[in-house]
Amino acid sequence: SSATPSTKSSYTIGLIPGDGIGHEVIPAAAQILSAVSGDKTFDFVNLDAGFEHFTKSGTALPEKTVSTLREACDGALFGAVSSPSHKVEGYASPIVQLRKELDLYANVRPVRRPRLENGTAADTAPLDLLILRENTECLYIKQERIEQTPEGQVAWADRRISERASRRIGQKALDMALARYLQRGHATVTIVHKSNVLSVSDGLFRTTVRDLYAQRPAAYQPIQLNEQLVDSLVYRLYREPHAFDVLCCPNLYGDIVSDAAAALVGSLGLVAGANVGDRFCLGEPVHGSAPDIAGQGIANPIAAVRSAALLLHHLDEHAMATRIERAVDAFLTTAAPSALTPDLPGGKGTTQSVLNGILAGL
Amino acid sequence: SSATPSTKSSYTIGLIPGDGIGHEVIPAAAQILSAVSGDKTFDFVNLDAGFEHFTKSGTALPEKTVSTLREACDGALFGAVSSPSHKVEGYASPIVQLRKELDLYANVRPVRRPRLENGTAADTAPLDLLILRENTECLYIKQERIEQTPEGQVAWADRRISERASRRIGQKALDMALARYLQRGHATVTIVHKSNVLSVSDGLFRTTVRDLYAQRPAAYQPIQLNEQLVDSLVYRLYREPHAFDVLCCPNLYGDIVSDAAAALVGSLGLVAGANVGDRFCLGEPVHGSAPDIAGQGIANPIAAVRSAALLLHHLDEHAMATRIERAVDAFLTTAAPSALTPDLPGGKGTTQSVLNGILAGL
Ligand SMILES: CC(C)[C@H](C(=O)O)[C@@H](O)C(=O)O
Ligand SMILES: CC(C)[C@H](C(=O)O)[C@@H](O)C(=O)O
Repeated sequence: SSATPSTKSSYTIGLIPGDGIGHEVIPAAAQILSAVSGDKTFDFVNLDAGFEHFTKSGTALPEKTVSTLREACDGALFGAVSSPSHKVEGYASPIVQLRKELDLYANVRPVRRPRLENGTAADTAPLDLLILRENTECLYIKQERIEQTPEGQVAWADRRISERASRRIGQKALDMALARYLQRGHATVTIVHKSNVLSVSDGLFRTTVRDLYAQRPAAYQPIQLNEQLVDSLVYRLYREPHAFDVLCCPNLYGDIVSDAAAALVGSLGLVAGANVGDRFCLGEPVHGSAPDIAGQGIANPIAAVRSAALLLHHLDEHAMATRIERAVDAFLTTAAPSALTPDLPGGKGTTQSVLNGILAGL
Repeated sequence: SSATPSTKSSYTIGLIPGDGIGHEVIPAAAQILSAVSGDKTFDFVNLDAGFEHFTKSGTALPEKTVSTLREACDGALFGAVSSPSHKVEGYASPIVQLRKELDLYANVRPVRRPRLENGTAADTAPLDLLILRENTECLYIKQERIEQTPEGQVAWADRRISERASRRIGQKALDMALARYLQRGHATVTIVHKSNVLSVSDGLFRTTVRDLYAQRPAAYQPIQLNEQLVDSLVYRLYREPHAFDVLCCPNLYGDIVSDAAAALVGSLGLVAGANVGDRFCLGEPVHGSAPDIAGQGIANPIAAVRSAALLLHHLDEHAMATRIERAVDAFLTTAAPSALTPDLPGGKGTTQSVLNGILAGL
């Protein structure tokens, strides 16, 4: 993505609803994309993946889904996948696999709350965090094995932290912080780690990002570089969320920290994400498949809609993206609490009523 | 620890202040122990450990500290250690080492807030969580190595999850939940894991605890057994803290979850911990060495004082422990906010003024 607007006139977008409320929020996001398309065209391709698909077909991520994304799509939106509560032979999370197969090395998760004046949150100060989560390694390489010992089973998992992956996510963090600096006059990157225990692996993550920063002092001088141990980060995030700006995290810490941050803005149903590689972007809300409310028409579509806006930024369709973001913010700041979905305090609305509210504000 | 009161008449207690505010809160906790001793005696032995000691002597955990704890002490209190922000050759966290050397396999962290009627918290409902953190393995085994590859350095860390360690912490969780059930008529154990990604290692943790529960259906029937993925646990903990009771966590998740829970009760300065093995207990507040406020006399001693009460329970001195716990709760519920230390809203007090308040209530 660059600051220059795109000159392309049509896009093929893969839609992978996945499981549960994915089937409700992804169509909603697609509808918003169509609504902002203007004289451009979005062609949507529906693609299978997920636990529901696995139970029907024996595969969680069909070959065809991967090859269509690779060969025919300019970008895609992913809904959510259900995690079976027990181990199911042959099943592995398709989203973890997709991130790896398409080399979508950065998981970009802006956690934002506009200034709320409608009483939906006790703390009305706006919040604008950006979580950058390394998306290809750490414990997510899923290299695990089990041993029999005289004292019973012993399981081992490998955690991989490479200089290359740390550099790629660190670079993204610094670049995005610089863009934020240009917009608002200040930017901080906080490296999240646990190098007081993992001195080698988290030590490598930490020094790789620090080195990147140190190598271009003139360019990065406007950015402040901090660091915080992951445990105290989660603590401080609640007490002083405004002390943070861009968070640069290894994969698993990023997973946990995003959910912690989501609680701060009132609901996971608001938090967008994008899995970004050098050539491809897969928008994906941070929330899960929410089996408890699936099929009821009350899932909050905002996270998916905002994820679509992140995809548009990646396609250099910044004007369209901004239209969506403003309409969402306007809706959140002016809607009566009862018009919101039930994940938000006082919410009595539906996916459709929220969608209508956003469409009206475009 | 058992329900039967101890008949011992004197105890030797190791005191390891460690770094930073450890030097302020550990003496305060010792003073409280003396104050409740009645016709029994506490003999205190001061022991070295920590980063400050490392910079003076080249060792973070002297042999003498370990052997004195092993051979001469009935229990001990540990303050906190500073984590150098950069890698320091030869330094390793003494607390991680102590937990392992003394086989203190359970880290017991009650996160409690009495009903507050003095306006120090927006949400005044009492909270009473019990975090049980496996204390000897997971990524804390610190088996790490680094490789040179054509693409730069690659670091590896081993994560170990054993049936034995999972069973020990699971057993503790179920036993403590049963005790809670007897006291209050309900108890839930939530297994915290990420087995949708770590199906082998977290899968072993999860099934080991589940199997323990299933093996004694009559005994554990009053306890509800739940589970929650660590990312959504951190999220739900903020939104619905009262949905949880006993949390049973692998080591690293337990580290992060304790800090998250501490934010809920207003301050890390309130949260006690105990590293517990079959024969020994090392009380240790959850907070760190807080270099920013060290030496100012304003550290909150409550976490350390409550840790001393946990140690007393372990020594079967339940009456003494309960006296301390009641005095702390009474102080927290009746003190003017300004009498509290500055980590709490409105706090203008000192370590000494809080200590005096608790002493007055004993
Ligand atoms: C579904 C799960 C594998 C996934 C993850 O852990 O990355 C989810 O929690 C997320 O945050 O996208
Ligand atoms: C100091 C550090 C090694 C320690 C840990 O991670 O266990 C601390 O955070 C704690 O929670 O006791």
